[in-house]
Amino acid sequence: MNNAVWIWYPGDFEIYHGMKQNFRREERGLGWPAFWKMDDWRKNLRFFRKYELAKPEVFTVHGCGVGHVQVNGQKYPLEKKITLPAGKHLIEVFIGNMTGLPSIYVESRLAQVKNLNDTETASIHSDATWGVDDFLEAVPVGTSSLYTRREQDPGEVEYEEIRVQPQSVVEKDGGTLIDFGQMVDGSPFLTLTDQCTFTIIYGESEDEALDPVYCYYKEENATVGTELRKRAFRYIYLPEIKPTEVQAYAVHQRVPLKRRASFSCGDDVINKIWEVSARTYALCSGLFFIDGIKRDRWIWSGDAYQSMMINPYLYFDKEIDKRTSRALRGNTEIRQHINTIVDYTMLWLISIQNEYMMDGDIAYVREMYPKMEAVMDLLFSQTDEHGLVRGRERDWIYIDWADIDKDGPISAEQVLLWKCCKVMAHCAELLAEEGMSEVGASGELHINQDIAILHGIQSTPVLGPDGRPLPADHVAPLDAPLLEEMRARLRDDATYYGEKADALRQAILDYYWDEEKGALIDSFTSGKRNVTRHANIFAVLFDFANAAQKEQIRKNVFYNEKVPQITTPYFKFFELDALGEMGDLDAIWETLHSYWGGMLERGAVTFWELFDPRQEGREQYGMYGDPFGKSLCHAWGASPIYLLGKYFLGVRPTSPGYKTYEVKPALQYWDKLDCKVPVGDKTVHIELNDGTLKISED
Amino acid sequence: MNNAVWIWYPGDFEIYHGMKQNFRREERGLGWPAFWKMDDWRKNLRFFRKYELAKPEVFTVHGCGVGHVQVNGQKYPLEKKITLPAGKHLIEVFIGNMTGLPSIYVESRLAQVKNLNDTETASIHSDATWGVDDFLEAVPVGTSSLYTRREQDPGEVEYEEIRVQPQSVVEKDGGTLIDFGQMVDGSPFLTLTDQCTFTIIYGESEDEALDPVYCYYKEENATVGTELRKRAFRYIYLPEIKPTEVQAYAVHQRVPLKRRASFSCGDDVINKIWEVSARTYALCSGLFFIDGIKRDRWIWSGDAYQSMMINPYLYFDKEIDKRTSRALRGNTEIRQHINTIVDYTMLWLISIQNEYMMDGDIAYVREMYPKMEAVMDLLFSQTDEHGLVRGRERDWIYIDWADIDKDGPISAEQVLLWKCCKVMAHCAELLAEEGMSEVGASGELHINQDIAILHGIQSTPVLGPDGRPLPADHVAPLDAPLLEEMRARLRDDATYYGEKADALRQAILDYYWDEEKGALIDSFTSGKRNVTRHANIFAVLFDFANAAQKEQIRKNVFYNEKVPQITTPYFKFFELDALGEMGDLDAIWETLHSYWGGMLERGAVTFWELFDPRQEGREQYGMYGDPFGKSLCHAWGASPIYLLGKYFLGVRPTSPGYKTYEVKPALQYWDKLDCKVPVGDKTVHIELNDGTLKISED
Repeated sequence: MNNAVWIWYPGDFEIYHGMKQNFRREERGLGWPAFWKMDDWRKNLRFFRKYELAKPEVFTVHGCGVGHVQVNGQKYPLEKKITLPAGKHLIEVFIGNMTGLPSIYVESRLAQVKNLNDTETASIHSDATWGVDDFLEAVPVGTSSLYTRREQDPGEVEYEEIRVQPQSVVEKDGGTLIDFGQMVDGSPFLTLTDQCTFTIIYGESEDEALDPVYCYYKEENATVGTELRKRAFRYIYLPEIKPTEVQAYAVHQRVPLKRRASFSCGDDVINKIWEVSARTYALCSGLFFIDGIKRDRWIWSGDAYQSMMINPYLYFDKEIDKRTSRALRGNTEIRQHINTIVDYTMLWLISIQNEYMMDGDIAYVREMYPKMEAVMDLLFSQTDEHGLVRGRERDWIYIDWADIDKDGPISAEQVLLWKCCKVMAHCAELLAEEGMSEVGASGELHINQDIAILHGIQSTPVLGPDGRPLPADHVAPLDAPLLEEMRARLRDDATYYGEKADALRQAILDYYWDEEKGALIDSFTSGKRNVTRHANIFAVLFDFANAAQKEQIRKNVFYNEKVPQITTPYFKFFELDALGEMGDLDAIWETLHSYWGGMLERGAVTFWELFDPRQEGREQYGMYGDPFGKSLCHAWGASPIYLLGKYFLGVRPTSPGYKTYEVKPALQYWDKLDCKVPVGDKTVHIELNDGTLKISED
Repeated sequence: MNNAVWIWYPGDFEIYHGMKQNFRREERGLGWPAFWKMDDWRKNLRFFRKYELAKPEVFTVHGCGVGHVQVNGQKYPLEKKITLPAGKHLIEVFIGNMTGLPSIYVESRLAQVKNLNDTETASIHSDATWGVDDFLEAVPVGTSSLYTRREQDPGEVEYEEIRVQPQSVVEKDGGTLIDFGQMVDGSPFLTLTDQCTFTIIYGESEDEALDPVYCYYKEENATVGTELRKRAFRYIYLPEIKPTEVQAYAVHQRVPLKRRASFSCGDDVINKIWEVSARTYALCSGLFFIDGIKRDRWIWSGDAYQSMMINPYLYFDKEIDKRTSRALRGNTEIRQHINTIVDYTMLWLISIQNEYMMDGDIAYVREMYPKMEAVMDLLFSQTDEHGLVRGRERDWIYIDWADIDKDGPISAEQVLLWKCCKVMAHCAELLAEEGMSEVGASGELHINQDIAILHGIQSTPVLGPDGRPLPADHVAPLDAPLLEEMRARLRDDATYYGEKADALRQAILDYYWDEEKGALIDSFTSGKRNVTRHANIFAVLFDFANAAQKEQIRKNVFYNEKVPQITTPYFKFFELDALGEMGDLDAIWETLHSYWGGMLERGAVTFWELFDPRQEGREQYGMYGDPFGKSLCHAWGASPIYLLGKYFLGVRPTSPGYKTYEVKPALQYWDKLDCKVPVGDKTVHIELNDGTLKISED
């Protein structure tokens, strides 16, 4: 047997499923596809691979789509056993698919097996060493560890299903209210004593389930056989049905992701916060990081940025980050900002460096680099005479729901742009130094089909689905002059972006650093010299500010009560992260108890999109002018996982891919610890007992 | 009632169905999607229209896809009756569809109808006056006269079905051979006395139906209930089934197109040639012009170019030309030549002018102009220091299956490029003069969404599905300065392309016109001075050669037996057309009888891809090294329709859209005529009886 996997055009799996995800929003009986440009997956592909067989082999191609196999120019149908003699062969597979994801799975066996104990394996199988083209450039294929079996269809998500029993079933206003005691993203299954049609009202809260008008989801005229679509709920309410007339359970559906961290300390509130955060995070992590399970169910770049920060402290799952990034970014050409938001495009770019710090995967940086370059071209195309980025007519300059003075170009966007230049310079250097050594790629970092076939070049490290390198017999180095040319080009890129960063830093300080206020102001064009926390938080977080400036920001902004408080958990994440970076853990510790502890006191089983302790009763579920507009299971609510892991357990990488990392628990907060945090493929175990700290790795 | 039609993103209907068409090829049990880059239709759209209602109206939006309606920012589900008071309203419809064509149908009625005889109609309905965007530029929607009913799905083709009875059913080699006496593109329906599984072998010829190995289509293990896919055949053979055991009929499926010409003369062979041509053409004309019904079933630009020439002499159907052109060209960006063939891209561009001569539709020229410009940019990007176009690495320089000396840039491609420059100059002038007067468009000839909403601008003439102008109350002129700027830009374009054409003409004469040979040579780089007919035919056909040069070409090429004969019907079309343009009708007349008459003598019920009178028996069905590789129903076989109509009946437009036209029958060939030829919306009737010619229009 050989480690075959499903293969497709790289990035298209994510574009395809990302679109499905972004089309799945539902609100009071209407569908709500996301309001931005959606890139398309390719429909017509040619897969190819050269093999040199030592012995005859028999292989079969399974395909999602219409098409055929060609071996050395001879055509065969899909699904047919094809026998090849020893020697060199070019296998090509042509696949078209308009409604699903065009993809193939190739498997083989030796033509003559002498006995069943024969351990020799055949070599023909679909994996990352194949190439693909859409009849334009050839590139290495895309794969996923989730799609390794022939009987799968990469166009469909395979969910793991978990049966959930009701926690309580009570009569309410003549109907039945069922509380599953936890958030479910799936469907209820009902058995009724009477054959009748009925209504199901869903609720994240009891109030929502009891409100037939303002609830988000409602199924009317249901029967026992009705196939209910996947929805998020904790409660369901069945009007006019008595508890004795119904039996119910729910089936929760999830994409399997493995929790690799655990947390236990002497503070039960903190333990509960960690656990509820982990559950919240799990619910908002499927094929992609989404914002919330009831609403919007969309892939938002700013939210995903934060989910990617949390990821190493819970799953350390390398694939979900990449799936999410690819889905957000789409194809190389970019004309509209990600989710239409300028700052979200920049956070997307910055996240590529974060991902690299997490797993050290240079091949991924190489894959993304042309898409990052296209982003920079777009951003630079909208800078003014000072090099400051401005929004175009239909761009959304978001930053946060806050009273930011958005006159002219605003400072928070410039700090992000500066950080993007730094990231680009870093990635270009990385690729020039190490990224090109193992592979061949054309000047556009795409391999050319003819070069690829002639030289057997590929531009991803040849890893099997198990992550181990496959035999490298089909990898040949690019010829030295071309490789050197590419390196030189990347070094030029690094210089270019470095200079851009320096010039921009000076412009930011010239235009936005207000000496009198000792802080960055929002806008220099309005004359208002308004200070908000946002740009200053980014300045600390991305190390834009020097040590003296950080001190001023701390005093004049962070601990200045005249500067309006951050109100959204989205930006609260950045603020607490900045405080953490500055070592101000007390402020974080206090917020953990008041904000997240406050939600627990309200009986939260997952963390909310927003929590305002002044709101009570039904009022606490409203948002955006909608009585149940607030999502009660929102990914950014899970940030305690990150804050606790990074600042209070003190685990962080000190080189890419956690080749080196540090563990510096903030011992003043703990009397007892029994925690595990993943560090690459290994896990660090932190134990504190009776004043003795034990740190071990396994 | 109001004339609602289905609306979609312009061009996407054609991209979607064109891809379906190009994925439909089948060969001996395998699928064969076309081997070129396929552009994608958009999946996520916003439709919009402003209305000012005199009275309250109730409207409903039907959608293919998921989504919702927004009226003045308020959301409603699809399929819901929405009542609006009198006054101004902005209606927006958001639709996402991953597997079909995102499209909507909007209909309304007055909210209060006083009595049933009330003739007032409501105004809200989907038609060409709506706008659409993919969250980038807004453009006027696309429509089709084929999709006017609410219950339709624009993602599905509605075929007209025609039942065909067998012409003969005979026993052959222990099985049953059924001859339907005509080509069918559809499915056989069988009733068997025994319930059993059986095999169906299809054939365009009897030989093919009797060859279970080399036949193109075969259905094995069929049962009476098996749903058979649409295939082309005249014969079916059922092995091991006796004629007494089976009853059969076939259902032919066609897209309704109306034959508007008729032909009757005193020469029965010519009458038969015309009729069989018309049948052949009908079979190869569906949503699009395809090459053949058995093979390839693809939309080829060179073949379509010729089908478009034939169209005014049989259907005068304006929509099939445009559908085909849009499908061939895809989206505006172009990186690969159409069907990968450089000359096919150029023929595509030239066909836009032909289409304009046929129907005078300036809006269509305006729609295509940005796509034509992108083509020119691509072509110019591959010209050398002399301005001559060369193929890139993966480009196909086709011209014809012939021994053309293809060293360096070749002359036939240059003549096409010259013609393209002339067409561009003409179209730019046209648009500058008349094309912009009625409409508003941005500098890129796309309307901008904001401008559109604010000013109610649209860039197509406001026609209802019946072709009549709709009330123009939502059309406002662009402000004068912008309009003038656009006109100036188009005049610049015209000058630019005119100068390009002149320079290229000089280069072609300098490099390819061989004074000694009195003809264009294929290549100037090889030193062989090889002359083929191809470039010289184009030089005559596109009026590149002046009168003296044409005379030389006639003598030195056309009637020079040392210059190899054209062997393909594809290029034979161009050659006969060139002869016709030069008035050499005898040569055409002779070819009609020998070539097309020759096929009739072989019992052809449709005209073939190729006919070689030297081939007999089974051999005559082979092509491309395949025993049944030849298509026996091929669109370019229908060219007699064009040749007879244009040169022998002498009907041709003398101004765009047949506003003026001429009828000059070549009377020396006729003793009797009773023919009708469409001329725009009217028809010209040509009658010749007893030496009296009568020409009338109705």
